[in-house]
Amino acid sequence: MCYTFINTLCPKGPLGENMIAKLIEKIKQTNAPICVGLDPLISHIPDYILDEKIKKYGKSTKAVAEAFYDFNMAIIDKTYDLIPAVKPQIAMYEEFGIDGMIAYKNTVEYAKSKGLIVIGDAKRGDIGSTSLAYAKAHIGVSEILGEKVSGFDTDFVTVNPYLGTDGVKPFIDVCNSEDKGIFVLVKTSNPSSGEFQDRLIDGTPLYELVANKTCEWGAMSMDGEYSNVGAVVGATYPKMSAILREKMPHTFFLVPGYGAQGGTAEDLKPCFNKDGLGAIVNSSRGIIAAYKQEKYSSLDFADASRAAVKDMIADINRVL
Amino acid sequence: MCYTFINTLCPKGPLGENMIAKLIEKIKQTNAPICVGLDPLISHIPDYILDEKIKKYGKSTKAVAEAFYDFNMAIIDKTYDLIPAVKPQIAMYEEFGIDGMIAYKNTVEYAKSKGLIVIGDAKRGDIGSTSLAYAKAHIGVSEILGEKVSGFDTDFVTVNPYLGTDGVKPFIDVCNSEDKGIFVLVKTSNPSSGEFQDRLIDGTPLYELVANKTCEWGAMSMDGEYSNVGAVVGATYPKMSAILREKMPHTFFLVPGYGAQGGTAEDLKPCFNKDGLGAIVNSSRGIIAAYKQEKYSSLDFADASRAAVKDMIADINRVL
Repeated sequence: MCYTFINTLCPKGPLGENMIAKLIEKIKQTNAPICVGLDPLISHIPDYILDEKIKKYGKSTKAVAEAFYDFNMAIIDKTYDLIPAVKPQIAMYEEFGIDGMIAYKNTVEYAKSKGLIVIGDAKRGDIGSTSLAYAKAHIGVSEILGEKVSGFDTDFVTVNPYLGTDGVKPFIDVCNSEDKGIFVLVKTSNPSSGEFQDRLIDGTPLYELVANKTCEWGAMSMDGEYSNVGAVVGATYPKMSAILREKMPHTFFLVPGYGAQGGTAEDLKPCFNKDGLGAIVNSSRGIIAAYKQEKYSSLDFADASRAAVKDMIADINRVL
Repeated sequence: MCYTFINTLCPKGPLGENMIAKLIEKIKQTNAPICVGLDPLISHIPDYILDEKIKKYGKSTKAVAEAFYDFNMAIIDKTYDLIPAVKPQIAMYEEFGIDGMIAYKNTVEYAKSKGLIVIGDAKRGDIGSTSLAYAKAHIGVSEILGEKVSGFDTDFVTVNPYLGTDGVKPFIDVCNSEDKGIFVLVKTSNPSSGEFQDRLIDGTPLYELVANKTCEWGAMSMDGEYSNVGAVVGATYPKMSAILREKMPHTFFLVPGYGAQGGTAEDLKPCFNKDGLGAIVNSSRGIIAAYKQEKYSSLDFADASRAAVKDMIADINRVL
């Protein structure tokens, strides 16, 4: 165990009322420890949606952005009753400039209007006042001569730890003041994640040192059994997940890598605590582009996403 | 030396015609190895500018965004003939949501219209297709059924290396196809940068391993003496800068930390090669908020920025 469980550090109201508790409550309600990654590519969008937008706006960023938003709304409409959360990947929207960012913001708002928790996958991180600006942008509010305004207003945001405590602390401060959460990149799911993350420092891999720091940071924002400071732990390295799960009993894991990236339900098991909690597993392509799979090809894209969500939930609950 | 100098890897036209060569040419023309960090905070903006916008748009993100843009244009107008580049920090704009991002994009376009090279300080980084989306967003183009569109279109962007080669390679591919550049975070200027970056791996600190990888990546996009893949090396750790300068003779350094963060001209010297090239030093607050310093307080804010730029150039050239 990497930190003592210090309830008194929880800075807001009674236990169990902060963001991570809300996420856990939604996971229990749906019996679905999963989130749908809303990471659209042009190639995911059915032709009839894109064609309609191009007819209206030409081959423009606005056409793509509007197509992404329609696509996302349809998938949210067909899945929101089954799942606790969505995780839009901001890069997919940022690629299309201002129009893309508008689609991102609208997607976040639409998902929240359906009662979903929104995890903004932005992997931001900088130093001091710059990290504070990112934190305000994504999970906080800014003040303009006393008037409060918000930027993208997700419930959680993912954070890159390379710059150390300076870069992460401003996000934790905003978690505490605005009742939000973060997931710190600890061990990522990609093939080259080991290049730096697995290197040994006094016999301990870097990702474990980042895990230790994440626990320290987490102690600054406890909320019941878990901290509002979670960790990104890829599904593709189950042995490492098992080590991290043991070292970080009070840290919730956001787990990418299931499905299209190669992680199986068996690989996910070590990410969960014995109570069946402790992790939320993301699938992006496997859900939003399910209609392109043979198995779901007779269905409309949004119905295919619903069927794929049901299959994913069953697959994961099978091993828990 | 961490890699063999392989000109044949330069994938575009004759040597010296890619982005890093353009930056070096501008540095030589101006005799100013500096860039101005356009990182506005509300507190930097003179009251009369903000008041005018609030009168027009209320206490809104649009008012702040328009104030930032006017502020930036005035500073660019008074400094563009003295400097090779500007470095807007995207977080400061992202904080104000869509309106903020519009101000960022407009600032980038305005700076380019004045002949400045623009380094987008975005510290992006993710895996595979997601990093590719970020690369297209910031330094590349996207295709919509054959039509090319661009997102934010800066000349360089800063990149976070924590995810390894998977996360960086898509940026390098875009550097090569679009004639752009990146700066990879190697050793950052903040107080806690050492928490992970300085930890020893087989006797070598992590930042040196990242430096080695940056050289490998750099060999994929050579351009004359230097690579289009540069490195962020903070001014605040001059001993480490000296080691990195020696290990990375063909890597251009983007150096934050001068001025407000505590780095002095003497601290910068180790960042440069013997030819007086190899680094570009950023100053943000020290320039854009110069009018708040006693020394420049008799001047209008943009004139104060011009005076501060001249002083910074003289200060740095004194030690080179």
